[in-house]
Amino acid sequence: MQNSSVDTVLRQSREAFLSYRNRTGAQKAKFLEAIAAEIEGLGDPLIRTAMTETNLPEARLVGERGRTTNQLRQFAAMVAEGSWVEARIDTAIPDRTPLPKPDLRKMMVPLGPIVVFGASNFPFAYSTAGVDTASALAAGCTVVLKAHPAHPKTSELVAGAIAKAISKCGEHPFVFQHVQDSSFEAGKQLVQHPLTKGVGFTGSFSGGKALYDYAAARKEPIPVFAEMGSINPVFILPGALKARSEKVAELYAASITQGVGQFCTNPGLLLSMETPELKSFTQQLAGKIREVAPATMLHPGIAENFVKNRGKALKEKGVTLIAESATPAQTNQGIPTVASVQAENFLVNPALVEEVFGPYSLLVVARTREELFKALDAIPGQLTATIIGEEDELKEYADFIRLVSDRVGRVIINGVPTGVEVCPSMHHGGPFPATTDSRFTSVGIDAAKRWVRPVSYQNFPHDLLPPELQNQNPLGIWRLVNNSWTK
Amino acid sequence: MQNSSVDTVLRQSREAFLSYRNRTGAQKAKFLEAIAAEIEGLGDPLIRTAMTETNLPEARLVGERGRTTNQLRQFAAMVAEGSWVEARIDTAIPDRTPLPKPDLRKMMVPLGPIVVFGASNFPFAYSTAGVDTASALAAGCTVVLKAHPAHPKTSELVAGAIAKAISKCGEHPFVFQHVQDSSFEAGKQLVQHPLTKGVGFTGSFSGGKALYDYAAARKEPIPVFAEMGSINPVFILPGALKARSEKVAELYAASITQGVGQFCTNPGLLLSMETPELKSFTQQLAGKIREVAPATMLHPGIAENFVKNRGKALKEKGVTLIAESATPAQTNQGIPTVASVQAENFLVNPALVEEVFGPYSLLVVARTREELFKALDAIPGQLTATIIGEEDELKEYADFIRLVSDRVGRVIINGVPTGVEVCPSMHHGGPFPATTDSRFTSVGIDAAKRWVRPVSYQNFPHDLLPPELQNQNPLGIWRLVNNSWTK
Repeated sequence: MQNSSVDTVLRQSREAFLSYRNRTGAQKAKFLEAIAAEIEGLGDPLIRTAMTETNLPEARLVGERGRTTNQLRQFAAMVAEGSWVEARIDTAIPDRTPLPKPDLRKMMVPLGPIVVFGASNFPFAYSTAGVDTASALAAGCTVVLKAHPAHPKTSELVAGAIAKAISKCGEHPFVFQHVQDSSFEAGKQLVQHPLTKGVGFTGSFSGGKALYDYAAARKEPIPVFAEMGSINPVFILPGALKARSEKVAELYAASITQGVGQFCTNPGLLLSMETPELKSFTQQLAGKIREVAPATMLHPGIAENFVKNRGKALKEKGVTLIAESATPAQTNQGIPTVASVQAENFLVNPALVEEVFGPYSLLVVARTREELFKALDAIPGQLTATIIGEEDELKEYADFIRLVSDRVGRVIINGVPTGVEVCPSMHHGGPFPATTDSRFTSVGIDAAKRWVRPVSYQNFPHDLLPPELQNQNPLGIWRLVNNSWTK
Repeated sequence: MQNSSVDTVLRQSREAFLSYRNRTGAQKAKFLEAIAAEIEGLGDPLIRTAMTETNLPEARLVGERGRTTNQLRQFAAMVAEGSWVEARIDTAIPDRTPLPKPDLRKMMVPLGPIVVFGASNFPFAYSTAGVDTASALAAGCTVVLKAHPAHPKTSELVAGAIAKAISKCGEHPFVFQHVQDSSFEAGKQLVQHPLTKGVGFTGSFSGGKALYDYAAARKEPIPVFAEMGSINPVFILPGALKARSEKVAELYAASITQGVGQFCTNPGLLLSMETPELKSFTQQLAGKIREVAPATMLHPGIAENFVKNRGKALKEKGVTLIAESATPAQTNQGIPTVASVQAENFLVNPALVEEVFGPYSLLVVARTREELFKALDAIPGQLTATIIGEEDELKEYADFIRLVSDRVGRVIINGVPTGVEVCPSMHHGGPFPATTDSRFTSVGIDAAKRWVRPVSYQNFPHDLLPPELQNQNPLGIWRLVNNSWTK
């Protein structure tokens, strides 16, 4: 991609923004609904294309398509309802002493053109019309989407669906632009362009951190929300092992290997105490892992990295293989693997908290509760953490659970981190290095907050105010008016 | 300050955070109220000390003290009421197909120890117990305050008031720590320390940008909210000049020179069209400026910089002096100054949008409406912009006003930017370089959002949930429950 074409794309995006920023919630809702419908209209060929490009099975892709259209419709509902703009009104007190109080009103406005990078592991939900695109369009921003090179045809099809929706809804043709360029340089230039006002990314630590650094080094730094690696620690408490080790083993063998371990919430780290029941749990987990057949990964590069990183991890000091799939891996397949290490080795080796993207998990064995607490301290920021425990011991570990929540975006009790429910209460984010800004989410309607900023309007003539801030509340939204919530 | 003592301070702050983060809204409210009361309890000696250290007049400082205690009480009311945590609840649907829906609940939690830099120009409201400290403590964060070297005794007195409040409320002694060290190195080390989780700063562009760069270059980047320079453009439309040029001149002569021009919202740039009335407006403004006596600036360094930057600005191509105070300036005084330049020169000279901190303003004269629009494009992100216009012409300029709002945090119609009302609708922030993150404010209760992040709790046993997320809503806060707002 030439410098000049990056410039053209961003100029077009800015031009489209100048009109799109003024679209009403109802208009944006109609547009987002139309995108969802057009994606559904692509039918089976979309699923077939994605299957070919990503090696993901049909059921998973059908499910992911549903999640993607569901996301689009949730954002449509959010902007149709309208309260998301956080309207606040403080009316004037002209006779206040010593100084009169002005009329002040505030609401969120969109940032401008947003550059979104498609993700390799979610060809629909985190790619072309995925949550970053949907949240930016909902916010009133325009989008420049850099397709992930691992699924260009899938991306092209979805981009075509968006183009149809643009046309049907009469939106500006450059509200969404699709860039196919696999070079690293193109991504860098898109982030560096002065008209770019925000960046959304889901992928590797090295990729996300590089974009963050480019954005921070700009003359005008811009916000980057990069969701990067996560090993999603799972703390299995002694009581749970005693009561139901086989069930836990079954649950986790499935979670570790689900989607060939290619979820950002894949549990890459299990932590437990050296109790009599741990041995049987380890054997049960090993048995289940041996039963899971290897499967083809998203693309050859990811499979290559898995082989390399798994090999490296297994050679770290004190790490021993517990089990791998009994079926040998074919080319480009990821082999389900579980290894183990004593906490004393884990505590002194930062390499062991690095993500091995794929169906690999490391079991850390602590001899004492103190070692378990120390292991927590050794784990950097994460998207999720999970606690498996019996009712009584969860109460006993309440302080520990609080410390766990200090370093993650979501804490799960007696479940698995895989499976990210799309709803307002879902936080998909977390302290660095899980993301570049722990204050924002990339799942759920709050994901739109990444792309907006507040503006105050002081002493505005009433008919120049946006409808969200007019006295009679024509949109019927929730607002904080003179410190009271009202509709 | 030694590296080792920075380390001690941050370790202590982290230790205090582990207990303070769990304080209830009621406890934090009591604490913030106690700080306000203790500051009032310092009485006249606090005002006298600040007068000596800052050269600010008594009335201004009494007003600023009121603003500071008012801020503390607004944050107290916010945490006492409790809805600010943005609680969301999505209850489980165990029999949903194909997959059961888990129970998910989300709320804001504090980031951790925050480093706050006291500001030179607001010894109370943006310093020791100012809005950054108050908002961080309200959020549940602990604070390490680096006193501004221009008013160390004032800062010490206020820090003493906070210490008393800590003691009276039984808070952890290291919830707030006061660091007196004028070196640049100390500030850098505080920002770089791994236990620091956020930074608040109000001051110069060079200072704020340096802190931002240190934070972005950390192994774990952290959020920095730096409110930096702003020239707060004022667009004076032709009709207003025709109808009331003298009134506008009077209003602006006062705003430009208020507080010796040492407000971040000081109007450093006036823009108007070359109409017959502009000449009389210029003469009226000149007359008013001549009448305003120079006054002593905050400290000698600021006065020196004013002299230097004013001199430099007046030498830029095409810039001519309109008027300066008829009274000569004494040592450390800032002399009220207004200069003028044609838009054609302004458009090609980026030096003319640099802030001259002090009582200086530049009038840009556009020959056409097109030049006025272009001038807007030449102005980088600002805290505020103001439009002075008659009712009809404001409507005529509606598109222009929208473009203005694209680059600022607050738009004022027919007023002055100085005078920042403390209320929920106030946004004090703006696109870079006004601040390092346009999505946050440093005035009003929303300032606490800088220091919190969401955490989701999935399938938690009910009695391990924070009260904010328990079924019976024991705190009676506003929550989004299954997509409906409810109390």
